[in-house]
Amino acid sequence: MTRTPKHPAVPDADHKLSPDHPGTGSRTTSRRAFLRKSGALVSSGVVLATLDANAQEASRATESGASPPAIPESMKAPGAPVGDKLYGVPSKYEAGVIRNVPKNQAQYISSASRTPLGDLDGIITPSGLFYERHHGGVPVIDPAQHRLMVHGLVKNPLLFSVDELRRLPSISRIHFLECSGNPVYTKPYGKTASDLVGLVSCGEWTGVSLKLLLDEAGLLPSAKWVMAEGADAAAMTRSVPLEKCLDDALVVYSQNGERLRPEQGYPLRLLLPGFEGNMNVKWLRRLKVTDAPVYSREETSKYTDLLPSGKAREFTFYMEAKSIITSPSGGQKVPGAGFVEIRGIAWSGHGKVARVDVSVDGGRTWAPAALQDPVLTRSLTRFRFPWRWDGRPTVIASRTTDETGYVQPAFEQLTGERGVNSFYHNNAIQPWRVADTGEVSNANS
Amino acid sequence: MTRTPKHPAVPDADHKLSPDHPGTGSRTTSRRAFLRKSGALVSSGVVLATLDANAQEASRATESGASPPAIPESMKAPGAPVGDKLYGVPSKYEAGVIRNVPKNQAQYISSASRTPLGDLDGIITPSGLFYERHHGGVPVIDPAQHRLMVHGLVKNPLLFSVDELRRLPSISRIHFLECSGNPVYTKPYGKTASDLVGLVSCGEWTGVSLKLLLDEAGLLPSAKWVMAEGADAAAMTRSVPLEKCLDDALVVYSQNGERLRPEQGYPLRLLLPGFEGNMNVKWLRRLKVTDAPVYSREETSKYTDLLPSGKAREFTFYMEAKSIITSPSGGQKVPGAGFVEIRGIAWSGHGKVARVDVSVDGGRTWAPAALQDPVLTRSLTRFRFPWRWDGRPTVIASRTTDETGYVQPAFEQLTGERGVNSFYHNNAIQPWRVADTGEVSNANS
Repeated sequence: MTRTPKHPAVPDADHKLSPDHPGTGSRTTSRRAFLRKSGALVSSGVVLATLDANAQEASRATESGASPPAIPESMKAPGAPVGDKLYGVPSKYEAGVIRNVPKNQAQYISSASRTPLGDLDGIITPSGLFYERHHGGVPVIDPAQHRLMVHGLVKNPLLFSVDELRRLPSISRIHFLECSGNPVYTKPYGKTASDLVGLVSCGEWTGVSLKLLLDEAGLLPSAKWVMAEGADAAAMTRSVPLEKCLDDALVVYSQNGERLRPEQGYPLRLLLPGFEGNMNVKWLRRLKVTDAPVYSREETSKYTDLLPSGKAREFTFYMEAKSIITSPSGGQKVPGAGFVEIRGIAWSGHGKVARVDVSVDGGRTWAPAALQDPVLTRSLTRFRFPWRWDGRPTVIASRTTDETGYVQPAFEQLTGERGVNSFYHNNAIQPWRVADTGEVSNANS
Repeated sequence: MTRTPKHPAVPDADHKLSPDHPGTGSRTTSRRAFLRKSGALVSSGVVLATLDANAQEASRATESGASPPAIPESMKAPGAPVGDKLYGVPSKYEAGVIRNVPKNQAQYISSASRTPLGDLDGIITPSGLFYERHHGGVPVIDPAQHRLMVHGLVKNPLLFSVDELRRLPSISRIHFLECSGNPVYTKPYGKTASDLVGLVSCGEWTGVSLKLLLDEAGLLPSAKWVMAEGADAAAMTRSVPLEKCLDDALVVYSQNGERLRPEQGYPLRLLLPGFEGNMNVKWLRRLKVTDAPVYSREETSKYTDLLPSGKAREFTFYMEAKSIITSPSGGQKVPGAGFVEIRGIAWSGHGKVARVDVSVDGGRTWAPAALQDPVLTRSLTRFRFPWRWDGRPTVIASRTTDETGYVQPAFEQLTGERGVNSFYHNNAIQPWRVADTGEVSNANS
């Protein structure tokens, strides 16, 4: 393909061309032409010939004069000035990347919105897209008025302002947060990764060690549990075993560098890394040390798992190891046969992700995916797996193993152990069907 | 201090009190009373008695009935519903935490806004507060129309759409970005950490290895440099040594999980970890492989350092090791004598931060700060240092050493070597003066 690029009209003195500005004709190979010719990507050993499909579009753009070295409109006049937005926002072309509020469910004060996992890369969830789960709506709290009380079975009950907590020794850590109903335990419905597992997000949290606060208050010998209470209209209340409170629990005030967003508990939140989301009490106002769990609504009528025997599992704190392929995932389309990088996220409430295996043949065979460094404790871990799709219908899935050796189960394995009456703690393998058209859908539905 | 908490009025059925709702009288010690009594924080060995100052405010809030166990207004009626904002924003109480556009400088299309470092925690900069530096304003670019050309001294010139690049093998890494004029080299002016060093931010980037693209194109033996050109009105152009392009350079499309913000180069940006910010060309449209640098405007009339000899340092790519105390920092106030956690950030373009030392006596003595894990290559690293301030005027500062053994210099050391005509690459130690009132100011001004 040969083109003679246009010379640009230079609109003002501020505009300059580089010393080797594109004024001379040059030959550029479109992806289609090149990849048809060579096809082999030496550095990674995978074949990229299927970029062809997109290359057709690239060729059209080239022909329209929008491609380099032709000068696009954006180079012909100055853009928006610095500080146009003192708090930046995404491009207007990304307006569709928003929290996912399921359309098929009535929305109440007690509801949830999900992270658009299929649109995201890496492990950090932007705070604007962090999943929400509220039991009484999002309160507006003036941080100057907010207080945290530490009382109960302690020698010295304490009352902290937010500023006081911020002055104490601080800790920053990257951790995931996940709702225990992610997805609900019944045969998983939903079309996209977000519909199914969008109640998980990951951020960098900064706050105070809960152990430090409890040490300050002075635990009495009978202390065994800590009741945490939120300042929302649901008075969200959970009991936390003392062991966790003295381990890695934090009272956090920041997320991804800035103060907590209102939906994440502004100005204070309990963070119990690896424990089910609802225990990470938002708008935290009270920590009462007790000798037994308080059996609040959220640990009796809810957040328990009814077993076939009629008994219920209760205090199922840990979010077990889980993973999901986010690209390609439900609602997306593979452009054509050839190279596909399968990408996804894995995590475990018990520690680090040790490995992720991927199957591209409906679970018959599995092969290890690459894990992106750094692999952090109780954090999302990004995995990647190079796949050469032959264009025939198949089912792809990921399966993680955490550092304790625990392996993410198949859905049938979960129901075999726990029956079908449970609702929470479904960490089953999520299979995606890839049709011969490239369309990806939930293989469970 | 003894109080009899009020019984709350429960406004609706959705509201519930925890089983041990605060209906019985309890004794709570205010921070002031407790800390006056004990003062010793066993777990960290530091004394917190100076939280007294804030505790006065806490006591007032308690007396007004706003503190737990009294029930605040936020618990008496439901808050905002889920999904009220499908792309979340900070609390209205944080409206002052915005990018810092210096008030004393006229704002042009070619200008900058700074990250409010003194307000942030951890190492991740939220994308909405990432520093900006534009040479021709922020262009609006339709990603469907945007193309990246790889040409010059290659066997196969290539043209990529954004979607094609997204299909290639991907990498995610956390790296800082810093403007080379951060702060300007002249005796540093400015009141706050943001005024002085706010042209540094840190995020998680996802994109394609530049080496992969160059391998695809096939480098000719004469290839030595790569010219990168942006699609903005300044046609921002820099020459990058091939060695860097084949090392850790990326063409990125995502930042902190989501697509690049417009100010950060949407839809494509060159990322050269550790190299001065302007080389990380935004709105990237062209990579031309050459046998020599192109000597663009940004590497001749600008971004060089005039030495006393009359010669200029050019191609000063690396951002050398630097650190700054962000709390307490200029414009902030230490509430009173006693425990202060000194917090700050450190980084080096040459790799990992090996250590940070802090002086609280104007540079006479230094002691090591704690570094927050994970310490990542060419990333911000958060450091912390417990200090017991005696209430007398002093000067505090931080000094980092990177893994190559390089030590951050004093300003006099920099000028001793480079004279006073330079403008860029000031990585000097930044001292803060703490007055007896607790007020913190720039000790250089």
